[in-house]
Amino acid sequence: MIITLTTDFGDSEYVGAVKGVIYSLCSKARVVDITHGVRKYDIRHAAYVVGTATPYFPPGTIHLVVVDPGVGTKRRAVILKTPDYIYIGPDNGCFSFIEGVERIIEIPSPGKDVSSTFHGRDVFAPIAAKLACGYDMMEFGSEVKEFNKLQITKPKIKDGVVTGEVLCIDTFGNVITNINSELLNLGYGEVLNVSLKDRELRIPFLKSYGYGAEGQLLALIGSSGYLELAVNRGNAAAVLGVNGGERLVIK
Amino acid sequence: MIITLTTDFGDSEYVGAVKGVIYSLCSKARVVDITHGVRKYDIRHAAYVVGTATPYFPPGTIHLVVVDPGVGTKRRAVILKTPDYIYIGPDNGCFSFIEGVERIIEIPSPGKDVSSTFHGRDVFAPIAAKLACGYDMMEFGSEVKEFNKLQITKPKIKDGVVTGEVLCIDTFGNVITNINSELLNLGYGEVLNVSLKDRELRIPFLKSYGYGAEGQLLALIGSSGYLELAVNRGNAAAVLGVNGGERLVIK
Amino acid sequence: MIITLTTDFGDSEYVGAVKGVIYSLCSKARVVDITHGVRKYDIRHAAYVVGTATPYFPPGTIHLVVVDPGVGTKRRAVILKTPDYIYIGPDNGCFSFIEGVERIIEIPSPGKDVSSTFHGRDVFAPIAAKLACGYDMMEFGSEVKEFNKLQITKPKIKDGVVTGEVLCIDTFGNVITNINSELLNLGYGEVLNVSLKDRELRIPFLKSYGYGAEGQLLALIGSSGYLELAVNRGNAAAVLGVNGGERLVIK
Repeated sequence: MIITLTTDFGDSEYVGAVKGVIYSLCSKARVVDITHGVRKYDIRHAAYVVGTATPYFPPGTIHLVVVDPGVGTKRRAVILKTPDYIYIGPDNGCFSFIEGVERIIEIPSPGKDVSSTFHGRDVFAPIAAKLACGYDMMEFGSEVKEFNKLQITKPKIKDGVVTGEVLCIDTFGNVITNINSELLNLGYGEVLNVSLKDRELRIPFLKSYGYGAEGQLLALIGSSGYLELAVNRGNAAAVLGVNGGERLVIK
Repeated sequence: MIITLTTDFGDSEYVGAVKGVIYSLCSKARVVDITHGVRKYDIRHAAYVVGTATPYFPPGTIHLVVVDPGVGTKRRAVILKTPDYIYIGPDNGCFSFIEGVERIIEIPSPGKDVSSTFHGRDVFAPIAAKLACGYDMMEFGSEVKEFNKLQITKPKIKDGVVTGEVLCIDTFGNVITNINSELLNLGYGEVLNVSLKDRELRIPFLKSYGYGAEGQLLALIGSSGYLELAVNRGNAAAVLGVNGGERLVIK
Repeated sequence: MIITLTTDFGDSEYVGAVKGVIYSLCSKARVVDITHGVRKYDIRHAAYVVGTATPYFPPGTIHLVVVDPGVGTKRRAVILKTPDYIYIGPDNGCFSFIEGVERIIEIPSPGKDVSSTFHGRDVFAPIAAKLACGYDMMEFGSEVKEFNKLQITKPKIKDGVVTGEVLCIDTFGNVITNINSELLNLGYGEVLNVSLKDRELRIPFLKSYGYGAEGQLLALIGSSGYLELAVNRGNAAAVLGVNGGERLVIK
């Protein structure tokens, strides 16, 4: 039984502690790192990563998510069940991109014997391990009707002008927008007029990074189906000075 | 049989080589990364990480530690046995926080057929793999009575004033001190007067990070039971300019 | 069956997606990270890492390599078979250090239903998974006679002067050259006269890092058998300002 980990722990001992707890409680679990490189405290980034990477895992996988700046406060914690997966983590919006949620269990706040600062290790990892070894999710809380989702702006189209925003920046510095490929009807080689941070850019729409010259700014449909601004063999976010959340308009 | 890895290799090919050696010698081993993000050459950091993360693993786990700036010199190498675990690595202080050591085996210096610069791959990984596949630790050296421990200053209390030091900085920039929670008798909301690097700080003691305002400096008991200075959704070490080893006084 | 991963994805969700695809198609595969820290888009670095780390794995291992700046363009993709391993990845030079290649399969360009930007997930991972679960490599393409190798300059010796170049920089900042230990006939303590970037350096040749004073520049034979410039407990590449590819002359 696979348990995946998605956190903002970086390459740190906190990752090891979570794995140790899981293997101590369920030796047959197989822990798989999705990434520990979520931008620290960035729930929006976590939501994007969880939404795009977890669906590639086999049915039955348990997805543990710990991007949890509100740990130890009144923020809720949840277990979500979809047809294929179970998700466990703080109810802070990091599951915003998960669709098909069938059941939601609220995990009660832990007692005083548990740390206030590391529920990944002390609350979520034990639940994930026990679920992997056959416990029922109902044993960990009571059913509720809703979980929190971030308000992710949807792109708008009016008179052929698309207004969207920067969803996040990936490991290569590619600027991923919230504009779905279906919203655009583009042919390779067309030039987009993009307004971003008070700049007017003319950016060619290409099939992949390598169709641009080295260092050239280009646009393409990225691997999750969103419009992406990129620099061939470079870092578009650094070139454009964007960080996530910026508005962009495409003509 | 789990073999954990704790190194300062970062995300590099050296990690892969160690894993390859282990799987070549013991295919049933299960290699688990604790972290490869120990600060390079920082034995004190290694000792803290090893001491706090390894106890979460199931009994029988073999813990391989390679933070080894003295590799190839006369520094000793050891195998330590505790009731639950076996530890393998350089005898440079990285096992300072391990308690309950029952037996200590000194690993002899390797011959000329072995690299002078990568004993993690050429000496320690083969031993870990063979131990995981049933060899006895006595086959790898001879018993000795002591292993090296760093001189970690213990905090002092006098007239209600606690003097301690910064043990290390974690992945979030949290400043972890050597002051145990038992030494302090604090209620949430109390304000600590902290002297650190010629600055006098007034820092609220809170239950967790999120009880501070965003960007606020606060103190709390971290997940390993030590007093910690933190910034809610920020990096306290950067804000305070500390690095590890600094003295701090709390009134 | 082990499938290793070597990429320039850093610690990102792209790693998780590749693992998810593999486990979905072959649940008995065991995915092992070699490194995701290859310098982004750096095929030369990839080639070095693949050449030095993969040979430590047990026979039968499948090595998946994704350092692929030309993804989605006309660059070829290949499966290579050696006596011990199968390698899968773009045919861009990242297999330059692999010896003993017996068979080469060219993977045809994928159809329109596959992303143009992430063949690691959509093309290479499925092939690796299927090979691990018993498919024959011939099912994934047709045999060809050659694969691409980088032109790595070989070091030259003339009148006792060795001219080589910097192959790459490792995680510690050690400067790894293309000069094999056999080319030099040095005793520990000898001083090398090194010309590098218009500087003339006198560097002692030592057995290992710790034989230098802290912060001292030194030369040694690294763990892959190449001459290496290093700084004891420091970062030689930063001190020397080298990046990879620089020429050096040793007298």
